[in-house]
Amino acid sequence: MNNITMPGRLERNDEVMEPLRKKLYIVGIGPGKKEGMTFEAAEALSRSDCIVGYHVYTELVQADFPEKEYYTTPMTKEVDRCREALALADTGKTVSLICSGDAGVYGMSGLVWQLHGEYPDVDIQVVAGVTAALAGAAVLGAPLIHDFALISLSDLLTPWEKIEKRLRLAAEADFVIVLYNPSSKKRQDYLQKACDLILCHQSPETVCGLVENIGREGETAKVLDLSQLREESVNMFTTVFIGNSQTRVIDGKMVTPRGYTL
Amino acid sequence: MNNITMPGRLERNDEVMEPLRKKLYIVGIGPGKKEGMTFEAAEALSRSDCIVGYHVYTELVQADFPEKEYYTTPMTKEVDRCREALALADTGKTVSLICSGDAGVYGMSGLVWQLHGEYPDVDIQVVAGVTAALAGAAVLGAPLIHDFALISLSDLLTPWEKIEKRLRLAAEADFVIVLYNPSSKKRQDYLQKACDLILCHQSPETVCGLVENIGREGETAKVLDLSQLREESVNMFTTVFIGNSQTRVIDGKMVTPRGYTL
Repeated sequence: MNNITMPGRLERNDEVMEPLRKKLYIVGIGPGKKEGMTFEAAEALSRSDCIVGYHVYTELVQADFPEKEYYTTPMTKEVDRCREALALADTGKTVSLICSGDAGVYGMSGLVWQLHGEYPDVDIQVVAGVTAALAGAAVLGAPLIHDFALISLSDLLTPWEKIEKRLRLAAEADFVIVLYNPSSKKRQDYLQKACDLILCHQSPETVCGLVENIGREGETAKVLDLSQLREESVNMFTTVFIGNSQTRVIDGKMVTPRGYTL
Repeated sequence: MNNITMPGRLERNDEVMEPLRKKLYIVGIGPGKKEGMTFEAAEALSRSDCIVGYHVYTELVQADFPEKEYYTTPMTKEVDRCREALALADTGKTVSLICSGDAGVYGMSGLVWQLHGEYPDVDIQVVAGVTAALAGAAVLGAPLIHDFALISLSDLLTPWEKIEKRLRLAAEADFVIVLYNPSSKKRQDYLQKACDLILCHQSPETVCGLVENIGREGETAKVLDLSQLREESVNMFTTVFIGNSQTRVIDGKMVTPRGYTL
Protein backbone atom coordinates (compact mmCIF):
# COMPACT_ATOMS: atom_id res chain seq x y z
CA MET A 1 0.00 0.00 0.00
CA ASN A 2 1.25 3.45 -0.83
CA ASN A 3 1.26 5.95 1.97
CA ILE A 4 -0.01 9.45 1.64
CA THR A 5 2.48 12.00 2.82
CA MET A 6 2.07 15.61 3.77
CA PRO A 7 4.73 18.24 4.24
CA GLY A 8 6.18 18.27 7.72
CA ARG A 9 5.37 15.71 10.33
CA LEU A 10 1.86 14.60 9.46
CA GLU A 11 1.44 10.90 10.00
CA ARG A 12 -1.47 8.73 9.03
CA ASN A 13 -3.52 8.21 12.17
CA ASP A 14 -4.16 4.51 12.48
CA GLU A 15 -6.57 4.99 15.33
CA VAL A 16 -8.84 7.01 13.08
CA MET A 17 -9.01 4.38 10.35
CA GLU A 18 -8.45 0.99 11.85
CA PRO A 19 -8.70 -1.57 9.02
CA LEU A 20 -11.44 -4.09 9.68
CA ARG A 21 -12.77 -7.05 7.77
CA LYS A 22 -16.05 -6.38 5.95
CA LYS A 23 -15.36 -2.68 5.75
CA LEU A 24 -17.30 -0.25 3.58
CA TYR A 25 -16.15 3.34 3.26
CA ILE A 26 -18.68 5.77 1.80
CA VAL A 27 -16.41 8.42 0.40
CA GLY A 28 -17.10 11.95 -0.78
CA ILE A 29 -14.37 12.66 -3.32
CA GLY A 30 -14.99 16.41 -3.44
CA PRO A 31 -16.07 18.55 -6.37
CA GLY A 32 -13.99 16.98 -9.11
CA LYS A 33 -10.37 18.00 -9.25
CA LYS A 34 -8.10 15.68 -7.33
CA GLU A 35 -6.76 18.50 -5.15
CA GLY A 36 -10.23 18.95 -3.63
CA MET A 37 -10.17 15.48 -2.06
CA THR A 38 -9.31 15.11 1.64
CA PHE A 39 -6.37 13.02 2.85
CA GLU A 40 -8.86 10.78 4.62
CA ALA A 41 -10.75 10.14 1.37
CA ALA A 42 -7.55 9.26 -0.50
CA GLU A 43 -6.53 7.00 2.37
CA ALA A 44 -9.87 5.14 2.24
CA LEU A 45 -9.49 4.59 -1.52
CA SER A 46 -5.91 3.47 -1.01
CA ARG A 47 -6.99 0.90 1.60
CA SER A 48 -9.78 -0.50 -0.56
CA ASP A 49 -9.75 -3.57 -2.78
CA CYS A 50 -12.80 -2.41 -4.74
CA ILE A 51 -14.16 0.98 -5.74
CA VAL A 52 -17.86 1.28 -6.59
CA GLY A 53 -19.57 4.30 -8.13
CA TYR A 54 -21.27 6.06 -11.00
CA HIS A 55 -18.87 5.83 -13.97
CA VAL A 56 -18.20 9.60 -14.15
CA TYR A 57 -16.78 9.49 -10.61
CA THR A 58 -14.87 6.22 -10.93
CA GLU A 59 -13.21 7.71 -14.02
CA LEU A 60 -12.08 10.68 -11.92
CA VAL A 61 -10.13 8.46 -9.50
CA GLN A 62 -9.15 5.52 -11.70
CA ALA A 63 -5.89 7.07 -12.92
CA ASP A 64 -4.70 7.63 -9.34
CA PHE A 65 -5.79 4.26 -7.99
CA PRO A 66 -5.22 1.99 -10.99
CA GLU A 67 -4.83 -1.31 -9.17
CA LYS A 68 -8.34 -1.53 -7.76
CA GLU A 69 -11.33 -3.53 -8.93
CA TYR A 70 -13.88 -1.06 -10.31
CA TYR A 71 -17.65 -1.55 -10.34
CA THR A 72 -19.90 0.99 -12.02
CA THR A 73 -23.67 1.31 -12.21
CA PRO A 74 -25.84 3.73 -14.20
CA MET A 75 -27.03 7.00 -12.65
CA THR A 76 -30.59 5.94 -11.79
CA LYS A 77 -29.48 2.63 -10.23
CA GLU A 78 -28.53 4.01 -6.82
CA VAL A 79 -30.17 1.20 -4.83
CA ASP A 80 -28.35 -1.46 -6.90
CA ARG A 81 -25.08 0.42 -6.46
CA CYS A 82 -25.38 0.55 -2.66
CA ARG A 83 -26.45 -3.12 -2.44
CA GLU A 84 -23.51 -4.10 -4.64
CA ALA A 85 -21.09 -2.20 -2.43
CA LEU A 86 -22.50 -3.82 0.72
CA ALA A 87 -22.49 -7.29 -0.87
CA LEU A 88 -18.87 -6.89 -1.98
CA ALA A 89 -17.82 -5.78 1.50
CA ASP A 90 -19.73 -8.73 2.94
CA THR A 91 -17.40 -11.10 1.04
CA GLY A 92 -14.52 -9.76 3.14
CA LYS A 93 -13.20 -7.21 0.68
CA THR A 94 -12.53 -3.63 1.70
CA VAL A 95 -14.76 -1.43 -0.43
CA SER A 96 -15.11 2.28 -1.13
CA LEU A 97 -18.41 3.53 -2.49
CA ILE A 98 -17.62 6.94 -3.98
CA CYS A 99 -19.84 9.99 -4.49
CA SER A 100 -18.95 13.38 -5.91
CA GLY A 101 -18.86 16.19 -3.37
CA ASP A 102 -19.97 14.88 0.00
CA ALA A 103 -21.50 11.41 0.38
CA GLY A 104 -23.94 12.81 2.95
CA VAL A 105 -25.45 15.61 0.84
CA TYR A 106 -27.78 14.18 -1.84
CA GLY A 107 -25.31 11.26 -1.78
CA MET A 108 -25.34 7.54 -1.07
CA SER A 109 -24.74 7.38 2.68
CA GLY A 110 -28.44 7.49 3.54
CA LEU A 111 -29.29 4.57 1.26
CA VAL A 112 -26.41 2.50 2.59
CA TRP A 113 -27.61 2.95 6.17
CA GLN A 114 -31.14 2.02 5.03
CA LEU A 115 -29.83 -1.18 3.42
CA HIS A 116 -27.39 -2.05 6.18
CA GLY A 117 -29.86 -4.43 7.84
CA GLU A 118 -29.39 -6.80 4.87
CA TYR A 119 -25.64 -6.94 5.54
CA PRO A 120 -25.34 -6.38 9.30
CA ASP A 121 -21.73 -7.61 9.55
CA VAL A 122 -20.39 -4.85 7.31
CA ASP A 123 -18.73 -2.01 9.20
CA ILE A 124 -19.61 1.33 7.61
CA GLN A 125 -17.52 4.49 7.77
CA VAL A 126 -18.61 7.72 6.09
CA VAL A 127 -15.78 10.00 4.93
CA ALA A 128 -16.97 13.58 4.48
CA GLY A 129 -16.02 15.66 1.44
CA VAL A 130 -16.41 19.17 0.05
CA THR A 131 -19.90 19.49 -1.42
CA ALA A 132 -20.63 21.62 -4.52
CA ALA A 133 -22.15 24.44 -2.43
CA LEU A 134 -18.85 25.01 -0.63
CA ALA A 135 -16.62 24.55 -3.67
CA GLY A 136 -18.84 26.76 -5.80
CA ALA A 137 -18.96 29.44 -3.09
CA ALA A 138 -15.14 29.57 -3.06
CA VAL A 139 -15.21 30.26 -6.81
CA LEU A 140 -17.94 32.92 -6.63
CA GLY A 141 -16.52 34.81 -3.62
CA ALA A 142 -18.19 34.38 -0.23
CA PRO A 143 -21.94 33.96 -0.73
CA LEU A 144 -22.49 31.47 2.14
CA ILE A 145 -20.86 33.39 4.98
CA HIS A 146 -24.13 33.48 6.86
CA ASP A 147 -27.22 31.24 7.22
CA PHE A 148 -28.19 29.39 4.07
CA ALA A 149 -30.47 26.64 2.77
CA LEU A 150 -29.74 23.88 0.29
CA ILE A 151 -32.62 22.80 -1.95
CA SER A 152 -32.65 20.24 -4.77
CA LEU A 153 -35.02 21.03 -7.65
CA SER A 154 -35.24 17.36 -8.65
CA ASP A 155 -38.78 16.06 -8.17
CA LEU A 156 -37.86 12.45 -8.97
CA LEU A 157 -38.00 11.55 -5.26
CA THR A 158 -39.70 14.61 -3.74
CA PRO A 159 -43.15 16.05 -4.59
CA TRP A 160 -42.85 19.39 -6.38
CA GLU A 161 -45.30 20.96 -3.89
CA LYS A 162 -42.80 20.29 -1.09
CA ILE A 163 -39.98 21.84 -3.12
CA GLU A 164 -42.17 24.90 -3.83
CA LYS A 165 -42.98 25.30 -0.14
CA ARG A 166 -39.32 25.15 0.82
CA LEU A 167 -38.36 27.71 -1.83
CA ARG A 168 -41.10 30.08 -0.68
CA LEU A 169 -40.31 29.82 3.03
CA ALA A 170 -36.52 29.94 2.53
CA ALA A 171 -36.91 33.18 0.56
CA GLU A 172 -39.27 34.61 3.21
CA ALA A 173 -36.65 33.75 5.88
CA ASP A 174 -34.03 35.66 3.85
CA PHE A 175 -31.74 32.63 3.60
CA VAL A 176 -29.11 32.56 0.91
CA ILE A 177 -30.33 29.61 -1.19
CA VAL A 178 -28.22 27.06 -3.06
CA LEU A 179 -30.01 25.02 -5.71
CA TYR A 180 -28.76 21.54 -6.61
CA ASN A 181 -30.08 19.73 -9.71
CA PRO A 182 -31.50 22.97 -11.12
CA SER A 183 -32.44 21.47 -14.47
CA SER A 184 -32.68 18.35 -16.56
CA LYS A 185 -34.14 17.52 -19.97
CA LYS A 186 -37.54 16.91 -18.40
CA ARG A 187 -37.39 19.94 -16.10
CA GLN A 188 -36.31 22.78 -18.40
CA ASP A 189 -38.45 25.43 -16.68
CA TYR A 190 -37.86 24.51 -13.02
CA LEU A 191 -35.25 27.19 -12.38
CA GLN A 192 -37.65 29.79 -13.80
CA LYS A 193 -40.41 28.50 -11.51
CA ALA A 194 -38.05 28.61 -8.53
CA CYS A 195 -37.01 32.19 -9.33
CA ASP A 196 -40.66 33.25 -9.57
CA LEU A 197 -41.35 31.86 -6.09
CA ILE A 198 -38.28 33.58 -4.65
CA LEU A 199 -39.25 36.84 -6.38
CA CYS A 200 -42.37 36.95 -4.14
CA HIS A 201 -40.02 37.81 -1.25
CA GLN A 202 -36.73 39.02 -2.73
CA SER A 203 -35.97 41.89 -5.10
CA PRO A 204 -35.21 41.29 -8.81
CA GLU A 205 -31.82 42.91 -8.10
CA THR A 206 -30.88 40.19 -5.58
CA VAL A 207 -27.30 39.09 -6.32
CA CYS A 208 -27.07 35.55 -7.69
CA GLY A 209 -24.33 33.27 -9.00
CA LEU A 210 -23.90 30.23 -11.21
CA VAL A 211 -21.01 27.78 -11.27
CA GLU A 212 -20.78 25.05 -13.88
CA ASN A 213 -18.41 22.05 -13.76
CA ILE A 214 -17.01 23.08 -10.38
CA GLY A 215 -13.40 22.00 -10.03
CA ARG A 216 -13.45 20.19 -13.38
CA GLU A 217 -12.43 20.96 -16.91
CA GLY A 218 -14.60 23.73 -18.31
CA GLU A 219 -15.35 25.36 -14.95
CA THR A 220 -17.26 28.59 -15.51
CA ALA A 221 -18.79 31.05 -13.06
CA LYS A 222 -21.09 34.01 -13.47
CA VAL A 223 -22.50 36.65 -11.13
CA LEU A 224 -25.88 38.07 -12.16
CA ASP A 225 -29.11 39.29 -10.62
CA LEU A 226 -32.28 37.35 -9.86
CA SER A 227 -34.20 38.74 -12.83
CA GLN A 228 -31.35 37.64 -15.13
CA LEU A 229 -31.06 34.26 -13.43
CA ARG A 230 -34.73 33.65 -14.28
CA GLU A 231 -33.81 33.79 -17.99
CA GLU A 232 -30.69 31.62 -17.77
CA SER A 233 -30.53 28.13 -19.15
CA VAL A 234 -28.63 25.83 -16.83
CA ASN A 235 -27.79 22.15 -16.90
CA MET A 236 -27.35 19.32 -14.42
CA PHE A 237 -23.69 20.30 -13.86
CA THR A 238 -24.66 23.80 -12.68
CA THR A 239 -24.96 24.86 -9.04
CA VAL A 240 -27.09 27.97 -8.51
CA PHE A 241 -26.63 30.52 -5.70
CA ILE A 242 -29.37 33.03 -4.83
CA GLY A 243 -28.27 35.73 -2.41
CA ASN A 244 -30.26 37.23 0.43
CA SER A 245 -31.16 40.88 1.04
CA GLN A 246 -27.60 41.62 2.22
CA THR A 247 -25.64 39.88 -0.54
CA ARG A 248 -23.73 42.24 -2.79
CA VAL A 249 -21.13 42.36 -5.55
CA ILE A 250 -17.59 43.31 -4.45
CA ASP A 251 -14.79 43.23 -7.04
CA GLY A 252 -17.06 41.17 -9.27
CA LYS A 253 -17.47 38.58 -6.50
CA MET A 254 -20.71 37.49 -4.78
CA VAL A 255 -20.34 38.30 -1.07
CA THR A 256 -22.80 38.05 1.84
CA PRO A 257 -21.39 40.22 4.66
CA ARG A 258 -21.84 39.04 8.24
CA GLY A 259 -22.31 42.40 9.93
CA TYR A 260 -18.81 43.24 11.14
CA THR A 261 -18.03 46.94 11.65
CA LEU A 262 -15.11 47.78 9.36
CA MET B 1 9.21 23.30 -0.74
CA ASN B 2 7.88 19.88 0.05
CA ASN B 3 5.56 18.33 -2.46
CA ILE B 4 2.37 16.57 -1.52
CA THR B 5 2.14 13.13 -3.00
CA MET B 6 -0.80 10.84 -3.45
CA PRO B 7 -0.83 7.18 -4.31
CA GLY B 8 -0.68 6.49 -8.01
CA ARG B 9 -0.16 9.15 -10.59
CA LEU B 10 -1.61 12.26 -9.03
CA GLU B 11 0.49 15.29 -9.80
CA ARG B 12 0.17 18.75 -8.36
CA ASN B 13 -1.63 20.80 -10.96
CA ASP B 14 0.36 23.98 -11.44
CA GLU B 15 -2.33 25.54 -13.57
CA VAL B 16 -4.73 25.35 -10.63
CA MET B 17 -2.41 27.12 -8.21
CA GLU B 18 -0.05 29.35 -10.12
CA PRO B 19 2.16 31.09 -7.54
CA LEU B 20 1.78 34.85 -7.74
CA ARG B 21 3.32 37.71 -5.84
CA LYS B 22 1.01 39.28 -3.25
CA LYS B 23 -0.99 36.11 -2.86
CA LEU B 24 -3.47 35.47 -0.06
CA TYR B 25 -5.03 32.02 0.31
CA ILE B 26 -8.09 31.86 2.55
CA VAL B 27 -7.98 28.24 3.62
CA GLY B 28 -10.61 26.04 5.27
CA ILE B 29 -8.57 23.42 7.14
CA GLY B 30 -11.54 21.11 7.78
CA PRO B 31 -13.05 20.03 11.07
CA GLY B 32 -9.88 19.51 13.07
CA LYS B 33 -8.03 16.29 12.42
CA LYS B 34 -5.34 16.63 9.81
CA GLU B 35 -6.84 13.87 7.68
CA GLY B 36 -9.90 16.03 7.06
CA MET B 37 -7.86 18.66 5.20
CA THR B 38 -7.89 18.70 1.39
CA PHE B 39 -4.72 18.34 -0.68
CA GLU B 40 -5.36 21.82 -2.01
CA ALA B 41 -5.45 23.26 1.52
CA ALA B 42 -2.18 21.55 2.47
CA GLU B 43 -0.63 22.78 -0.76
CA ALA B 44 -1.65 26.38 -0.02
CA LEU B 45 -0.12 26.16 3.47
CA SER B 46 2.99 24.60 2.02
CA ARG B 47 3.38 27.45 -0.49
CA SER B 48 2.91 30.14 2.14
CA ASP B 49 5.54 32.16 3.98
CA CYS B 50 3.10 33.19 6.72
CA ILE B 51 0.09 31.55 8.33
CA VAL B 52 -2.48 33.78 10.04
CA GLY B 53 -5.37 32.60 12.24
CA TYR B 54 -7.06 32.21 15.58
CA HIS B 55 -4.54 30.45 17.85
CA VAL B 56 -6.59 27.24 18.22
CA TYR B 57 -6.38 26.69 14.46
CA THR B 58 -2.75 27.74 14.02
CA GLU B 59 -1.86 25.23 16.75
CA LEU B 60 -3.59 22.50 14.73
CA VAL B 61 -1.32 23.03 11.71
CA GLN B 62 1.91 24.28 13.32
CA ALA B 63 3.40 20.82 13.89
CA ASP B 64 3.00 19.94 10.20
CA PHE B 65 4.20 23.26 8.84
CA PRO B 66 6.87 24.25 11.38
CA GLU B 67 8.94 26.58 9.20
CA LYS B 68 6.32 29.23 8.65
CA GLU B 69 5.88 32.62 10.31
CA TYR B 70 2.76 32.44 12.46
CA TYR B 71 0.47 35.35 13.35
CA THR B 72 -2.43 34.86 15.74
CA THR B 73 -5.22 37.19 16.84
CA PRO B 74 -7.91 36.70 19.51
CA MET B 75 -11.31 35.30 18.59
CA THR B 76 -13.25 38.56 18.50
CA LYS B 77 -10.61 40.37 16.41
CA GLU B 78 -11.69 39.03 13.04
CA VAL B 79 -11.39 42.37 11.23
CA ASP B 80 -7.84 42.88 12.53
CA ARG B 81 -6.94 39.32 11.53
CA CYS B 82 -8.14 39.80 7.95
CA ARG B 83 -6.44 43.22 7.63
CA GLU B 84 -3.20 41.72 8.96
CA ALA B 85 -3.35 38.89 6.42
CA LEU B 86 -3.97 41.32 3.56
CA ALA B 87 -1.24 43.69 4.77
CA LEU B 88 1.27 40.83 5.03
CA ALA B 89 0.42 39.64 1.52
CA ASP B 90 0.77 43.22 0.28
CA THR B 91 4.43 43.18 1.35
CA GLY B 92 5.03 40.44 -1.23
CA LYS B 93 4.80 37.46 1.08
CA THR B 94 2.59 34.51 0.29
CA VAL B 95 0.05 34.23 3.09
CA SER B 96 -2.55 31.68 4.21
CA LEU B 97 -5.37 32.89 6.43
CA ILE B 98 -6.79 29.75 8.01
CA CYS B 99 -10.28 28.99 9.30
CA SER B 100 -11.62 25.78 10.80
CA GLY B 101 -14.09 23.91 8.60
CA ASP B 102 -14.75 25.94 5.48
CA ALA B 103 -13.55 29.54 5.14
CA GLY B 104 -16.80 30.42 3.36
CA VAL B 105 -19.27 29.22 6.04
CA TYR B 106 -19.27 31.58 9.04
CA GLY B 107 -15.60 32.04 8.11
CA MET B 108 -13.25 34.83 7.09
CA SER B 109 -13.60 34.88 3.29
CA GLY B 110 -16.46 37.41 3.35
CA LEU B 111 -14.52 39.90 5.46
CA VAL B 112 -11.42 39.56 3.30
CA TRP B 113 -13.40 40.39 0.17
CA GLN B 114 -14.96 43.35 2.00
CA LEU B 115 -11.49 44.65 2.94
CA HIS B 116 -9.87 43.87 -0.40
CA GLY B 117 -10.37 47.45 -1.62
CA GLU B 118 -7.73 48.56 0.89
CA TYR B 119 -5.16 46.18 -0.66
CA PRO B 120 -6.23 45.91 -4.30
CA ASP B 121 -2.96 44.38 -5.52
CA VAL B 122 -3.36 41.25 -3.40
CA ASP B 123 -4.58 38.25 -5.34
CA ILE B 124 -7.10 36.26 -3.27
CA GLN B 125 -7.84 32.56 -3.62
CA VAL B 126 -10.38 30.80 -1.42
CA VAL B 127 -9.69 27.10 -0.75
CA ALA B 128 -12.86 25.26 0.30
CA GLY B 129 -12.89 22.83 3.22
CA VAL B 130 -15.22 20.40 4.99
CA THR B 131 -17.52 22.42 7.27
CA ALA B 132 -18.73 21.07 10.63
CA ALA B 133 -22.19 20.24 9.25
CA LEU B 134 -20.72 17.76 6.77
CA ALA B 135 -18.14 16.28 9.15
CA GLY B 136 -20.69 15.97 11.95
CA ALA B 137 -23.23 14.37 9.60
CA ALA B 138 -20.69 11.68 8.68
CA VAL B 139 -20.31 10.87 12.38
CA LEU B 140 -24.06 10.81 13.10
CA GLY B 141 -25.06 8.75 10.05
CA ALA B 142 -26.75 10.52 7.13
CA PRO B 143 -28.94 13.34 8.46
CA LEU B 144 -28.31 15.79 5.58
CA ILE B 145 -29.14 13.56 2.63
CA HIS B 146 -31.92 15.89 1.58
CA ASP B 147 -32.63 19.66 1.77
CA PHE B 148 -31.30 21.37 4.87
CA ALA B 149 -30.71 24.79 6.41
CA LEU B 150 -27.72 26.07 8.38
CA ILE B 151 -28.45 28.60 11.12
CA SER B 152 -26.07 30.21 13.60
CA LEU B 153 -27.56 30.98 17.02
CA SER B 154 -24.98 33.69 17.69
CA ASP B 155 -26.65 37.09 17.95
CA LEU B 156 -23.37 39.01 18.14
CA LEU B 157 -23.74 40.10 14.51
CA THR B 158 -27.37 39.20 13.74
CA PRO B 159 -30.52 40.44 15.50
CA TRP B 160 -32.17 37.62 17.51
CA GLU B 161 -35.53 38.38 15.82
CA LYS B 162 -34.01 37.44 12.46
CA ILE B 163 -32.63 34.19 13.90
CA GLU B 164 -36.07 33.39 15.39
CA LYS B 165 -37.77 34.02 12.07
CA ARG B 166 -35.35 31.73 10.26
CA LEU B 167 -35.81 28.95 12.83
CA ARG B 168 -39.59 29.19 12.59
CA LEU B 169 -39.74 29.21 8.79
CA ALA B 170 -37.09 26.50 8.39
CA ALA B 171 -39.09 24.21 10.69
CA GLU B 172 -42.33 25.04 8.85
CA ALA B 173 -40.56 24.15 5.56
CA ASP B 174 -39.56 20.77 7.06
CA PHE B 175 -35.86 21.38 6.47
CA VAL B 176 -33.34 19.39 8.44
CA ILE B 177 -31.70 22.16 10.48
CA VAL B 178 -28.05 22.40 11.54
CA LEU B 179 -27.27 24.85 14.34
CA TYR B 180 -23.83 26.44 14.59
CA ASN B 181 -22.76 28.35 17.73
CA PRO B 182 -25.64 26.83 19.75
CA SER B 183 -24.46 28.24 23.05
CA SER B 184 -21.99 30.47 24.85
CA LYS B 185 -21.67 31.76 28.40
CA LYS B 186 -23.96 34.67 27.62
CA ARG B 187 -26.44 32.55 25.64
CA GLN B 188 -27.11 29.55 27.89
CA ASP B 189 -30.81 29.25 26.98
CA TYR B 190 -30.63 29.87 23.22
CA LEU B 191 -30.79 26.20 22.26
CA GLN B 192 -33.89 25.80 24.42
CA LYS B 193 -35.46 28.85 22.75
CA ALA B 194 -34.61 27.44 19.33
CA CYS B 195 -36.15 24.05 20.19
CA ASP B 196 -39.34 25.76 21.39
CA LEU B 197 -39.69 27.57 18.06
CA ILE B 198 -39.08 24.37 16.10
CA LEU B 199 -41.57 22.48 18.31
CA CYS B 200 -44.32 24.75 16.90
CA HIS B 201 -43.97 22.81 13.62
CA GLN B 202 -42.16 19.54 14.40
CA SER B 203 -43.02 16.71 16.77
CA PRO B 204 -41.21 16.27 20.11
CA GLU B 205 -40.14 12.85 18.77
CA THR B 206 -38.24 14.42 15.87
CA VAL B 207 -34.84 12.72 15.62
CA CYS B 208 -31.93 15.00 16.56
CA GLY B 209 -28.18 14.67 16.97
CA LEU B 210 -25.28 16.37 18.70
CA VAL B 211 -21.60 16.17 17.86
CA GLU B 212 -18.96 17.76 20.05
CA ASN B 213 -15.30 18.35 19.10
CA ILE B 214 -15.84 16.99 15.59
CA GLY B 215 -12.66 15.36 14.27
CA ARG B 216 -10.69 16.38 17.36
CA GLU B 217 -9.67 14.80 20.61
CA GLY B 218 -12.72 14.10 22.75
CA GLU B 219 -15.15 13.74 19.82
CA THR B 220 -18.54 12.62 21.11
CA ALA B 221 -21.85 12.12 19.35
CA LYS B 222 -25.36 11.49 20.58
CA VAL B 223 -28.69 10.76 18.90
CA LEU B 224 -31.75 11.93 20.83
CA ASP B 225 -35.20 13.39 20.23
CA LEU B 226 -36.26 17.03 20.06
CA SER B 227 -37.84 17.04 23.53
CA GLN B 228 -34.56 15.67 24.97
CA LEU B 229 -32.46 18.11 22.94
CA ARG B 230 -34.40 20.97 24.57
CA GLU B 231 -32.98 19.88 27.96
CA GLU B 232 -29.38 19.36 26.78
CA SER B 233 -26.57 21.65 27.75
CA VAL B 234 -24.24 22.25 24.84
CA ASN B 235 -21.13 24.36 24.35
CA MET B 236 -19.48 26.35 21.58
CA PHE B 237 -17.76 23.20 20.28
CA THR B 238 -21.08 21.42 19.70
CA THR B 239 -22.87 21.21 16.36
CA VAL B 240 -26.59 20.45 16.63
CA PHE B 241 -28.67 18.56 14.05
CA ILE B 242 -32.49 18.66 14.10
CA GLY B 243 -34.14 16.20 11.76
CA ASN B 244 -37.21 16.73 9.61
CA SER B 245 -40.46 14.76 9.58
CA GLN B 246 -38.76 11.92 7.67
CA THR B 247 -35.58 11.56 9.70
CA ARG B 248 -35.34 8.33 11.66
CA VAL B 249 -32.96 6.21 13.71
CA ILE B 250 -31.42 3.22 11.88
CA ASP B 251 -28.80 1.11 13.71
CA GLY B 252 -28.44 3.93 16.22
CA LYS B 253 -27.63 6.38 13.40
CA MET B 254 -29.53 9.54 12.41
CA VAL B 255 -30.71 9.05 8.82
CA THR B 256 -32.92 11.19 6.56
CA PRO B 257 -34.07 8.93 3.71
CA ARG B 258 -34.45 10.44 0.25
CA GLY B 259 -37.44 8.48 -0.97
CA TYR B 260 -35.90 5.59 -2.90
CA THR B 261 -37.99 2.43 -3.22
CA LEU B 262 -36.00 -0.39 -1.62
